[in-house]
Amino acid sequence: VKITQMTALDVRFPMPPGAGSDSLHVDPLYSFATCKLRTDDGLEGTGITFTLGRGNEVVTAAIRAFWPFVRGHDVAELAADLGARWRAWANESQLRWLGPHKGAIHLGLAAVTGAIVDLWARSEGKPLWRLLLDLSPEQLVALADFSTISDVIDEAGALELLRERRLPEAEIAAQLERGYPGYDTSVGWLGYSRDQLVTNALSSVGRGFRAVKLKVGSPDIATDADRVAAVREAVGPEILVMVDANQCWSVPRAIEAGRALASSDVFWFEEPVHPDDVLGYRDVATALAPMRIAGGEHVPNQVVFKNFIRAGAIQVAQPDVVRLGGLPEFLGVALMAAEAGIPVLPHAGETSQIHQHLILFTRCVLGLPELPLETIPHLAEHFVDPVQIVKGRYRPPTVPGIGAALQPDSLARHAATTEVLT
Amino acid sequence: VKITQMTALDVRFPMPPGAGSDSLHVDPLYSFATCKLRTDDGLEGTGITFTLGRGNEVVTAAIRAFWPFVRGHDVAELAADLGARWRAWANESQLRWLGPHKGAIHLGLAAVTGAIVDLWARSEGKPLWRLLLDLSPEQLVALADFSTISDVIDEAGALELLRERRLPEAEIAAQLERGYPGYDTSVGWLGYSRDQLVTNALSSVGRGFRAVKLKVGSPDIATDADRVAAVREAVGPEILVMVDANQCWSVPRAIEAGRALASSDVFWFEEPVHPDDVLGYRDVATALAPMRIAGGEHVPNQVVFKNFIRAGAIQVAQPDVVRLGGLPEFLGVALMAAEAGIPVLPHAGETSQIHQHLILFTRCVLGLPELPLETIPHLAEHFVDPVQIVKGRYRPPTVPGIGAALQPDSLARHAATTEVLT
Repeated sequence: VKITQMTALDVRFPMPPGAGSDSLHVDPLYSFATCKLRTDDGLEGTGITFTLGRGNEVVTAAIRAFWPFVRGHDVAELAADLGARWRAWANESQLRWLGPHKGAIHLGLAAVTGAIVDLWARSEGKPLWRLLLDLSPEQLVALADFSTISDVIDEAGALELLRERRLPEAEIAAQLERGYPGYDTSVGWLGYSRDQLVTNALSSVGRGFRAVKLKVGSPDIATDADRVAAVREAVGPEILVMVDANQCWSVPRAIEAGRALASSDVFWFEEPVHPDDVLGYRDVATALAPMRIAGGEHVPNQVVFKNFIRAGAIQVAQPDVVRLGGLPEFLGVALMAAEAGIPVLPHAGETSQIHQHLILFTRCVLGLPELPLETIPHLAEHFVDPVQIVKGRYRPPTVPGIGAALQPDSLARHAATTEVLT
Repeated sequence: VKITQMTALDVRFPMPPGAGSDSLHVDPLYSFATCKLRTDDGLEGTGITFTLGRGNEVVTAAIRAFWPFVRGHDVAELAADLGARWRAWANESQLRWLGPHKGAIHLGLAAVTGAIVDLWARSEGKPLWRLLLDLSPEQLVALADFSTISDVIDEAGALELLRERRLPEAEIAAQLERGYPGYDTSVGWLGYSRDQLVTNALSSVGRGFRAVKLKVGSPDIATDADRVAAVREAVGPEILVMVDANQCWSVPRAIEAGRALASSDVFWFEEPVHPDDVLGYRDVATALAPMRIAGGEHVPNQVVFKNFIRAGAIQVAQPDVVRLGGLPEFLGVALMAAEAGIPVLPHAGETSQIHQHLILFTRCVLGLPELPLETIPHLAEHFVDPVQIVKGRYRPPTVPGIGAALQPDSLARHAATTEVLT
């Protein structure tokens, strides 16, 4: 079963006013740089990388750059040796200059890797989470690339971890039965008023969610503290309340803000400073302990995650498989975090679809705690198989693949460019 | 004087066999994602970003993405407030998702910023180094963006540093008179044989260079140690010999290699491990001290440089203004390094042309030591005003601008794509 065609699409969706807005990203236009791969037996796999609109054409160009390295390959052969194949793509001798392992070229690789993983899962007739749960520790280790993280974890250490941490089968069955808890970020955009936040948070709790997240980064800290306190008062002490600064603050300002927010019993404080600032995160975490510091949606690769973990800079890891270069690197991050005892809660579970699968892997195979997974529902209508959330919990997907296929009608209406490569 | 036109060119040059090869970049095709900006009074500025061939089209797409934010602006107004303008471009609310501040979008910003700085210097009728030396400390500080590095240096600290460190005018005159020392990386590509290395190194010393750099990362460490020892023996104890692993090793392997190379009196050990691995670099530096660890050509932004400096992870900083997002960020890195007492030796002085200007700034204005600046001559024929090196020393450029303008004939022959935006 050989890959015979790539279609690269630049797809941009209209957004409701204020939706998606945060301290630095004030006017997002949710978009996907999309990679569709077709095989000679007619199977189609889809991988998507999320962007905010402008620049989506740059990531789409990066997707096309990988076509010569994927073209003609057999899906099962790629899947059986995915860690090594991925390492070769990520280190392609000319393309790697654009990173290495970061920015548009890595975002493009994520979409291509996603399409390959989707093809693999579809060819096996399984949703990705089921495929991953059915693999042996040896097969899982062959999906990762330890070359840049071997000073923290290597194949042997990963095998040991995978053999030790898997939940008993009865617990896995119970987990799948009750679904995985979510929280809805769309209640708390920075562009919403204080009253709207309270109304949205109460509505979210009414729909069964047990956690809410609020954007912070208002012009003054008192405004943020007031908005968060209002929501805490409205939802009561049992609901988790998280805050997210989306990178807008300097280190001293983040520490000042964290202190002002502590009285609202904040469960985690997300992206306090620039996402590359490992030692800045550590300073914030040290100053605000025991408040948990969360980060990772903008951490570009497993090497940077290794540094965050080694430095004690984050207490919640939020890798995004479509910012990392795809499944192999997500596994590397998840293994390092699990070994360090850090929860792994991928960024935006719903927007890129694949994270609802990966959270079942980190929960059931790595035994990580059942903390809530983000959901942002603005794009649900565009997916062929959108996330199913019942009473605040993700239902395990049943359709084979990773679930990233977009509605043909949505593509027809919203694809700015479509290029077919053979 | 308003900017009325952008031309984005994807230019790729043929290379001699083996030239440019290192441990991970085995077959480079030296290329420039090129930004030309034209003003309504007919002035033209050129900024270039270096890549290795494939993927150059992705960076060229990133250049085009900045056109709406540059179009119609007045050059003098941009120049007077460049730090703040640059910060706004680097944080453009949708484009920043592709980084932030890294990868193709940041490489594209570097080319655009380079073209603006070139326009500015041309409109002042000065080579960039002269323009920078003529600015007051206050004017220099207005070129930088301290928002993400204020925990290490802010405007006030930068002003103090600039007032203290400038060389006396007589020393500046003497420095300009004698030129700035270079070293020629092209003697030591990994694809060259041991005998060729020795021949090239002796030839380089014969042409007046007092330092040579050799690529390492052979399949076994003994081979590297033998190659480096042969060159050391040939050139004698007075010539500086540096080695460059170009990121190919894991932390333990880099430490093992560094120990094997120490007996050849290596002046610095460059890019021992992955360029994002701050704590890995620190581990290597600690294990190999007093051997100097050098790095920075693949460090994407001033935030990551801040972490390298804070961690004591590098003893030589090698920022590349065309990997950083341009002059404002280079200044931030140079100021942090100068304050920490770390030499600043930009990557590839000749390939991107602008570094021959910036080294005169760091030497004369920041008072940093006169250590040699890299030169890689493979592209000299394509520049309108190529670097002038006499007896191993860069002559201060005399032509107004940054010197990145390419020969019209080279563009005609080697531009894969040319797109004009108005």
